[in-house]
Amino acid sequence: MMLNIGICQLQVSESKPENLNRAERLMRKAREGGADILVLPEMFNCPYDNRYFPVFAEEEQTGETVRFLAETAASLQCYIVGGSIPERDGDRIYNASFIFDPKGQRIGKHRKLHLFDIDVPGRIAFKESAVFTPGSDLTVVDSMHGRFGVGICYDIRFPEYFRLLSDAGIQILFLPAAFNMVTGPAHWETLLRARAIDNQIFVVAASPARNLAASYVAYGHSMAIGPWGEILWQAEAEETVQVVGIDLNRIAEVRQNMPLHQHRRKDLYRVEKVSK
Amino acid sequence: MMLNIGICQLQVSESKPENLNRAERLMRKAREGGADILVLPEMFNCPYDNRYFPVFAEEEQTGETVRFLAETAASLQCYIVGGSIPERDGDRIYNASFIFDPKGQRIGKHRKLHLFDIDVPGRIAFKESAVFTPGSDLTVVDSMHGRFGVGICYDIRFPEYFRLLSDAGIQILFLPAAFNMVTGPAHWETLLRARAIDNQIFVVAASPARNLAASYVAYGHSMAIGPWGEILWQAEAEETVQVVGIDLNRIAEVRQNMPLHQHRRKDLYRVEKVSK
Repeated sequence: MMLNIGICQLQVSESKPENLNRAERLMRKAREGGADILVLPEMFNCPYDNRYFPVFAEEEQTGETVRFLAETAASLQCYIVGGSIPERDGDRIYNASFIFDPKGQRIGKHRKLHLFDIDVPGRIAFKESAVFTPGSDLTVVDSMHGRFGVGICYDIRFPEYFRLLSDAGIQILFLPAAFNMVTGPAHWETLLRARAIDNQIFVVAASPARNLAASYVAYGHSMAIGPWGEILWQAEAEETVQVVGIDLNRIAEVRQNMPLHQHRRKDLYRVEKVSK
Repeated sequence: MMLNIGICQLQVSESKPENLNRAERLMRKAREGGADILVLPEMFNCPYDNRYFPVFAEEEQTGETVRFLAETAASLQCYIVGGSIPERDGDRIYNASFIFDPKGQRIGKHRKLHLFDIDVPGRIAFKESAVFTPGSDLTVVDSMHGRFGVGICYDIRFPEYFRLLSDAGIQILFLPAAFNMVTGPAHWETLLRARAIDNQIFVVAASPARNLAASYVAYGHSMAIGPWGEILWQAEAEETVQVVGIDLNRIAEVRQNMPLHQHRRKDLYRVEKVSK
């Protein structure tokens, strides 16, 4: 089954209305280009910066960005994987992705599971946990185009999560993300392709465009990858939108050629969801 | 702690004595170059071909290749990760790697856990399970230079195995392997680097040189990769030997900069060894 994914690598500024306008423009363009599912980057409505997250945070019920995404999905009659935004829930703030169907119904929400706390001296330091609370749910969403999973950025570094999503039957992994100029060149393409190859699924990753004026400079290089690990499309650094056609039948073909799931030694090891 | 790894990408022919001679020559050269641990490719004594495996197979107690490896380790006073050979054990044949210390004592053995049964029509087909029995043990070896793990070729496609080795405290993964001209360009570097990045360990992979006259043409491109995923050395296709210096202190440094192991959500998922 052919499916068109609209990947929006948008430039994020310090103005929330400007970010939403920009997102709307790119999503409309992708929809006009035939996209069935639209995907936005991590923190598409807010600079990726701990000082901004609490200020830009919204509650799900009342937030303008959540409403904007619902209305845009309904007006474009299209699925939207809404990148991520800072979500306020009581005293807590999450890095959260809201997912909508073509009627504007919210069909899923992913709260980033693994918070980005790193310190490579002199190169890059960030401490998401100073602001965010991590989520606690695996995110699998059913659509008329099949089942997909959602992770956010640093989640990609934990292969167990994608194994569990794959075991749950996802065909596409959507990853809103914002790697930087240190981890991007070093790890971005390798990790995305490895998750696709290991699990024999499509991987679609959307990054903000590179904004050299920002405190945190995103790597860009949004990508779509096939279940054999082939790069179907990769952006450069600047703002862009692309509709990438994918053939979901490729999954069955690749898995027939190389039956990795059957070859797993479940008699020797297993990956399990921990019951709460 | 600095350590020198001698990687032998040797050309494999249909003559076992010639293969052993060639292995001896390359290992001696690497040892003269300062290597502390030598690593040979998958099936370094035998063409990678189901017709040859039963003919070249040896028993551990009486086999000339096993004796050769023990004697070479003792005479060079050096650790050897002995690539792999077809090992006969009663009615069964394994794709097995024998590991020796500088006294010539066998300190470990890895029997390939995941057999290479693939069929990409018109491109590559192989069915190891027609000849081999899979192993059933995770292979961790202690040396005076620290703890390392061993996998063979197709084992690399199963991230669970390397997670368990990493949890067992390995610092280096040795992977004798023989990817081919289809899977090599598509997956080799990505998978090796991803295992290094995810587990923040060194990965050393040794392939046979590319022999265009063989029924199965190996990709070559033996590699050494650091715990940040950086390529320390990569061969081309032809026979070569290289001593690669690695600094084991890099592991602690990388793990301090980006504490992936601490960031794993063991409250949500776990990878476990299955008890027998």
